[in-house]
Parts: sequence; C-alpha cells; structure tokens
Amino acid sequence: MAYLVLMRHGESQANRDNIFTGWNDVPLTNKGIEQAHKAGKFIKNLDINFTDVHTSVLMRAIDTAHIVLKEINQEYINEHKTWHLNERHYGALRGQKKINIKKKYGEKQFKLWRRSFDSIPPLLDYPDDDLRYSRIGIKEPRGESLKMAYIRILNYWIDQIAPKLLDGHNQLLVAHGSTLRALVKYLDNISDQDIDKVEIPNGEPIIYKLDDNLNVISKIIK
Amino acid sequence: MAYLVLMRHGESQANRDNIFTGWNDVPLTNKGIEQAHKAGKFIKNLDINFTDVHTSVLMRAIDTAHIVLKEINQEYINEHKTWHLNERHYGALRGQKKINIKKKYGEKQFKLWRRSFDSIPPLLDYPDDDLRYSRIGIKEPRGESLKMAYIRILNYWIDQIAPKLLDGHNQLLVAHGSTLRALVKYLDNISDQDIDKVEIPNGEPIIYKLDDNLNVISKIIK
Repeated sequence: MAYLVLMRHGESQANRDNIFTGWNDVPLTNKGIEQAHKAGKFIKNLDINFTDVHTSVLMRAIDTAHIVLKEINQEYINEHKTWHLNERHYGALRGQKKINIKKKYGEKQFKLWRRSFDSIPPLLDYPDDDLRYSRIGIKEPRGESLKMAYIRILNYWIDQIAPKLLDGHNQLLVAHGSTLRALVKYLDNISDQDIDKVEIPNGEPIIYKLDDNLNVISKIIK
Repeated sequence: MAYLVLMRHGESQANRDNIFTGWNDVPLTNKGIEQAHKAGKFIKNLDINFTDVHTSVLMRAIDTAHIVLKEINQEYINEHKTWHLNERHYGALRGQKKINIKKKYGEKQFKLWRRSFDSIPPLLDYPDDDLRYSRIGIKEPRGESLKMAYIRILNYWIDQIAPKLLDGHNQLLVAHGSTLRALVKYLDNISDQDIDKVEIPNGEPIIYKLDDNLNVISKIIK
C-alpha cells in the first residue's frame, strides 16, 4: 500500500490572463502562491511521509512543490525535476489569449484543442531550443496532443514513479493540468472519449491510496 | 574545464543566537534570506550554466539553494539532497550556547572543538532517530570531528560531484561551514594543522575553475 498525491501548480500569470502556455516558463501569481500554501497545509494534515517529489522543469510547478514541502516539513525528500512531466506543448497556440483563439476558430475547435485526447494544436514552424532540454538530447516538440504528452508521461510513471510506489514509498507529484489529466486517465481507466470532461483545478491535491498492484483503493479530491 | 561554486547557507537562527547546531534543522533568519538573494545575484553575473545543485538534507541549506536557483533563473537543474553534505554533528554540544561552552571548558578546548581537524566533541548518550536518515539505513552519529565528517563528504565528492565536473558539467553546492571547510581543505591541499585557520562566512560564494584533472585553475571568493 502506498499514497500518491497529485497536484496541479497554483495559479500562474498565464492562468490569470487566460493565455495558452504549455512549455513557456511563467511564474505563479500571489494567488497561486497562496493556493500552494493552503494545499500544503491540507496535505500536512494527512500525515503522510513522502520519499520523493516529482515536478516538471517549469517554475510554476517547482515553486509550488517547494512551498508544499516547506508546509509539510519534508523539504529533505528526494526531488526529481523532469521534462516528462511538463505541461502539454500547445504549439502555435502558445502565448495566445484563449478568447482570441475561440473567436478565430470557433467554440468547437477551441474545445477540441483544449480538452480532447488526440487533437493536435497548430504546430510551431520551428521548435524552440532551450538549454534545459537540448543538453540532455531532447528536441522540443512543435506542439502536442494530450495523447502525445500521455506517452512521455506514462513512460516516466512506469520508470520512475510506479517502482517506488510498489516498494511502499509515498510519492508526491506537482505538475500541470494536462500532466495530471493523463495520469488520472490512466489510474481511473477513463476512456479517450470521456477524458474531455476531466478538469484539474489549480492547487487542489488529489490523494490516491493504491494497493500492492497499484490498483486504486480510494481517491480523495480536496 | 568546469566551474564549481561552493556556498554556505545564509544566516540561520542558530548562527544569529550563537548556538552549536550541526544536524539540528533550523530555519534561516530574514538576514539569511537576504544573504541568499544577494549571493544569487552575484552568481547570476558570473553567467555559468549549472547542471546540478547539491545540498544537505537540512532546511537552511535547501532554502538557500532554492533562493539562489530562482535568482539565477535555473530552477530546473537537477537537485541532489544528501546527508553526506550535512554540517558536522556537534554531539552533546548541539543546541548549547557557544559562550556557555567557552566559559565551562575554556578558550583552548572550545577552539579545538570548533576548528581543529580531529578533535571530537562530547558525544550524545544516544543518537537521534530521524526518519530522513533511518529509512535509508543511516544511523545518526553521536558526534563527529571534522575528520569524521571529511570522510563522508569526500565519499560524496568522489561518487557524485567529481564525475560530473570531469564531464564538464558546472556544479553548485550549497551546504554548511564544516562541509565547505572539508572540501576547501581537499581542493586547496590544506594541511590538518592549517585547516583551523579557515572560516567560511554565511552566504558568500566561492568560485573554483577546475581543469580537466580537477586541479584548481583559479579561485574567486566573493
């Protein structure tokens, strides 16, 4: 038996301004910082000792994780930052106001790009080239569907998270809307069709209790 | 060629109150937080891209490291927290006011316990038993000389830091007075006798430029 606590970062400046973000690296707002503290206090009351925290390489997830670790007095646990847990790459939508995209392409296409499993956003002409990826041999995507992100996220789950849970080590994961939708889809056996109904709010922990085969015993949403 | 930047944490509450601390886990003061920001700004100007940051499992080092990473816009680098880089364990002196120990045992013995290479502080009757150590099979020491700490620190250097520097990856290390005295002793070939003259101030980075055999090319102290 082990606990897995999933959490989306607190409100970012892009969340506040309703902008598509993805791999862009934007800071938390004051409200987002407050949400992280509140979530930390909630997690502290669960009285779970974690061995590891997993985050993306984006500051809104890392900062949220650090605030939570401080609140639960477990700053010393192993910290793993990985591009595998990055938000889905929103391609050419990245940096654009959601309301403008909705106006330009219509409600239906907008919803598909945001919530469906396999629709791919308009691609960037050229990928970015950030040192944090290039130096470990990762070429940045020009855009990703949730399905494309799901594959990289599940690979990390299989290699780095599941083995630790199987050893009985409680794991904390602080990442992004799409990252968590992918993991929730996997853990709760949600179909490709039904995943469009799943939204993950900022800064609200989801607590999974998993059995020795990593089946879900219980799920608590804050 | 690679850069190694060493830094002692900012002022802790125990530094401020002149208390022996060691493995006790105490927070930074506001002055300590300020020192960390200032050091981060200094390091930012060096324009070094790090691949890894190494800290102890004590919050004064971890918090200092996080502040520095934010200041240099490199929060995404690999973070390694290890008991190997903890402060020396001050045994039964731990938690006691330095002035009281000086009065009780005299200036000479006080200085030996603080600064000499091999004098061991009075030992604890029983070691503590903190989960962060026990769950990875580490029995807490009842007290350590700098020499005893040197061995665990150098083991970590050999296994985890030197190989990365040999690969040309710049490394940041944020730790404690004794941890840094041990590393400076090793890097600068300081004798067991002369190490008693070396003090490392809070929050002031030391920048080593190392050649392909990890010999020191240059050393800058902020």
